[in-house]
This record gives sequence, structure tokens and C-alpha cells, in this order.
Amino acid sequence: MKIGFIGLGIMGTPMAMNLRAAGHEIIVPDRRSLTQEMRAAAQVVADPAAVAEAAETIILMVPDTPDVEAVLFGAHGVAEGLSAGKLVIDMSSISPIATKDYAARVNAMGCDYLDAPVSGGEVGARQATLTIMVGGPDAAFARAQPLFQLLGKNITHVGAENGAGQTCKVCNQIIVALNIQAVAEALTFARKAGADPAKVRQALMGGFASSRILEVHAERMINRTFAPGFRIRLHQKDLNLALTAARAMDMALPNTAIAQQMFSVVAAREGGAEQDHSALVQAIETMAAVNP
Amino acid sequence: MKIGFIGLGIMGTPMAMNLRAAGHEIIVPDRRSLTQEMRAAAQVVADPAAVAEAAETIILMVPDTPDVEAVLFGAHGVAEGLSAGKLVIDMSSISPIATKDYAARVNAMGCDYLDAPVSGGEVGARQATLTIMVGGPDAAFARAQPLFQLLGKNITHVGAENGAGQTCKVCNQIIVALNIQAVAEALTFARKAGADPAKVRQALMGGFASSRILEVHAERMINRTFAPGFRIRLHQKDLNLALTAARAMDMALPNTAIAQQMFSVVAAREGGAEQDHSALVQAIETMAAVNP
Repeated sequence: MKIGFIGLGIMGTPMAMNLRAAGHEIIVPDRRSLTQEMRAAAQVVADPAAVAEAAETIILMVPDTPDVEAVLFGAHGVAEGLSAGKLVIDMSSISPIATKDYAARVNAMGCDYLDAPVSGGEVGARQATLTIMVGGPDAAFARAQPLFQLLGKNITHVGAENGAGQTCKVCNQIIVALNIQAVAEALTFARKAGADPAKVRQALMGGFASSRILEVHAERMINRTFAPGFRIRLHQKDLNLALTAARAMDMALPNTAIAQQMFSVVAAREGGAEQDHSALVQAIETMAAVNP
Repeated sequence: MKIGFIGLGIMGTPMAMNLRAAGHEIIVPDRRSLTQEMRAAAQVVADPAAVAEAAETIILMVPDTPDVEAVLFGAHGVAEGLSAGKLVIDMSSISPIATKDYAARVNAMGCDYLDAPVSGGEVGARQATLTIMVGGPDAAFARAQPLFQLLGKNITHVGAENGAGQTCKVCNQIIVALNIQAVAEALTFARKAGADPAKVRQALMGGFASSRILEVHAERMINRTFAPGFRIRLHQKDLNLALTAARAMDMALPNTAIAQQMFSVVAAREGGAEQDHSALVQAIETMAAVNP
């Protein structure tokens, strides 16, 4: 199949390569940043409009909501090249509310739209083990499913409404942030009270307090290894999506709001926002005058 | 060994029975509430002082900090019957700070003291699969270890300082409460945005958002099954221990403080405090005017 791929960053590049390796033709817009490897593997055209003209399915993997809007509806954007019957899949992590609008505008051109954000990071992108959370009509999902299977493992059709995939991704980021803060408050409490956080972690593994975060991120907090991983800057972006959508829906997310403030405390330090999100523990420590 | 056991409630009764089944002599203080089964299985004496006189090791399993203080140092309390060389093990969940004081007073009588709170609930008590978190000197721990092995499975000597076990238990309760709130905020966000919480839970299992709480408590929230389980009333008691100790140590636990407020929102309803702690989700729903 002719697949347009727009957004060839840390995530997008290995994803496009996995589609290519399965025999699909990849069409990409020209950018100075395109690697030689990508120029060799893909058909390079002028811009997103030209990508949409040449491809049957167009995949987006860009940083944030305004980037998706620009790629879709900006000058020389995808919308200028679309014709009826094509499929647009946005795999970026963006606003669930904006997503409904973008989908409606693409549908109005006679095209299918899916929101399909992922989790699993660069490793998941390279190894094709991403978790993919999909929102959109059944028929569009069925059409995209063979492509998703080349990119990820745990593929869930969350709902037939567009935005359901993005909503699910926001839920993921809420839980991950709050589980990190849970472990950060507990381990700092232990430290402050004179107990060994490593022993506490060990005692709690296997019980009701157990989580992937207690397994992985608590260890990073104990060993003080805050190289990313997943950067605080990106998690701040995701919690902003959560809090903005919640505000629009008249909904309080009290602990999510506090976690966002804690990320700001860490981001205030030199290089703080570029650390792994487990470094949130530094905010709790700073407030408690704990010298780890 | 002659083991005194004080506090024969839902947890204490099966624990005492497990020690009895392994061949130990159990000595208990007389109470109207003693079951016939317990009267047949144990030696019944007048009061905690008489228990401490007759037993080598005295185990406490009572509800809260003031109960431990009364049993140890009140009229006809354990302290009145203690003589040098005995071992006191407090398996209740109480204040880590008060624990240091009680241990010092018991040590001053020439006796060992361990704090050894548990998690795993009534089922864990009956099946001898409790998680046991122990604080106190190495020699005392070594002395108690054979008894712990009759009561639980995951036994951790958290630290040689008394209070380390209670600190660990507080950490457990912080993480469990905050992981419940994490799932509650996320699933209510999903519901409010029109996505199916069950599908969201399914998509997130196995990723970084996964936890025992996402497995067990998220399902209770989705199925609206709030019969305990672990009662909100008891979790309020435990978070009070966390917040009181944090206050005494000049430490902020922002999300723990919020979770305690959310439990209060649920407890304000008729029967609310007697529900399972997963019913915390009702506080998030109430604030968002979500009708589940």
C-alpha cells in the first residue's frame, strides 16, 4: 500500500521503517532533517499536500495539537491533497477535543479519520511493540488494523467516536504521573522517617501497592538515575492536555493538577524538564528539605 | 513457646489460631467477646498484665495507636506483667512516631520490641500469607522470625530502628490510596469524555499505567461493586497516620492530603465510610456531576 508518513522524529522514523520492511511504499514530505536512510527508503515529495495526493493512507506522528492542525489544514497541508476515500491516521498524542473537530473536517471531504496515539516509547516503536489506542468508526479501524499490527502489539479499539483513542492516552498519562507521585510521596516519607527506601520498595512489591511504576521508577528514584526515559517536558505537555480537556468539560482532576505543579517545581531547575519523569520525586524532597 | 495474643478481632483471631495450629501455647486476656473456639484453644487469664506474666512473647493486634498505648501502659497493662528478656511484637498499624516511644519504654524494662504491621487483610491472616513489615533490632527480629513464618509470606526486616515497620506500612497505604485516586481520575475523565472506561482499562493493562489497583479496584469502579474489601473508614485512619507523622516531620504530602479529602467526600454520604476504598471514585464523579 502507498502510505504517507508525516513526522519522522524519534518515534516516526522507526515506525515508518517497520511499514517499509513489510513491503509498503512510504511517501514523505521533504525536510532538510531527512536522514540518508529515509531518503533511500521512501519516495520524497514536496509537502504534506503532495503526500496526501500520492498516498492512500496518511499517518501523522508529530509533537502536539498545533502541529497536527498545521500539517492537516495549513498551507500545502494534507487537506489540499486529499480526495474522497482516503484514510488519515493521527498517531500523535494531542487534544481529544481538537481531534473531534479535525476528524469532522476530514470526514467532510469523504475521507476516514482515526486517532491512534501510542505508548511504549522509542523502544516500542523500534521493536514494533507499541500499545495503540484507537478511536474512530469500525470500518476505518478494520481498514487500518493490518498497519497497526506492523507497529504494535496491544491494539485496542477504544471507541467508534473519534477522540476515544486520545482520551485513552490522556488516561494513561494521568495514571502514570499519579503513580509516580504516589511512589515519590511514599519513598520520601520513608527517607524522612529514617527508613531505607529500597527496603520499603522491596517490602511493598507483590502487594496491593505494586505497579510498573513501583518496579521501574521507584528504582530510578532510589538509584538517582534520572536520565530519560520519558522527559518531564513531554509529561507536562500531556498533563496540560488532561487539564485543558477537563476544564472544558467542567471536571476537577485534583491530583493531576498537583502533579503538574510538582513537574513545574522540577522544571524550574537547570535541566530539570529534560530529566526522566521519575525525577518528580525531587519536588517532594525539595519541599521537605530532604537531602537525598 | 508461650505466646500472649492481645486483640482477637477479624485479623487477630485467625493469626492466633495459626500459631496454635503450629503447636504454640496461646495465652489471651479474658473478654466477653471471646469465642468458644478461642476459649477452648487458648489459656484465658485476667488481663494484659497477666498475659505478659505468663508468656515469653506478647503479640498485639489492636485497632489504633491509643489502643496499643492502653494495652501496654494502661492499668493492668502489659508493662505491669513484663520482666526482663521478654519480647513484645506490635502487629497493629499505628503511628511510627509513637512506636519509637513505646519501644524505648519497653526496652527500658530489659525487653525486646518489634513493630511488625501487616497487609493482606482477613484472607491473608487466615491463609498465613500476610505481608509483614518489621522494624527493630536484628536479634529481636531473628527471635521473632519463626513466628512470622507461621503468619505470613513476604516478611521484610525494613530496618533495625523501631518504627521502620510502621513507616513502611504507612508508605503502603499512601501508595494504595494514590493509585486508587489515579485510576478514579482517569476513568472518570474517560466517562466524562464519552469513552468506555472498561475499554480504557483494558488498553492500559500491561503498559506503564498497570498496577494491582488498575487490575482489581478499577474493575470494582466499572462494575460499581463497593462492598468491602477494605473500608474507607480504615483507610482514613491510615492516611491520618501518614499526615500526622508528615506534619510532625515538617513534610508536605500534597496528593495524600487530597486523597484524604476525597475519602471525606464519600464518607459524608449515608454508609459511605463503610464502602470499599475503591468507592473514592464517587468523590471525583460527584465533583464532576457525572452520573455513572
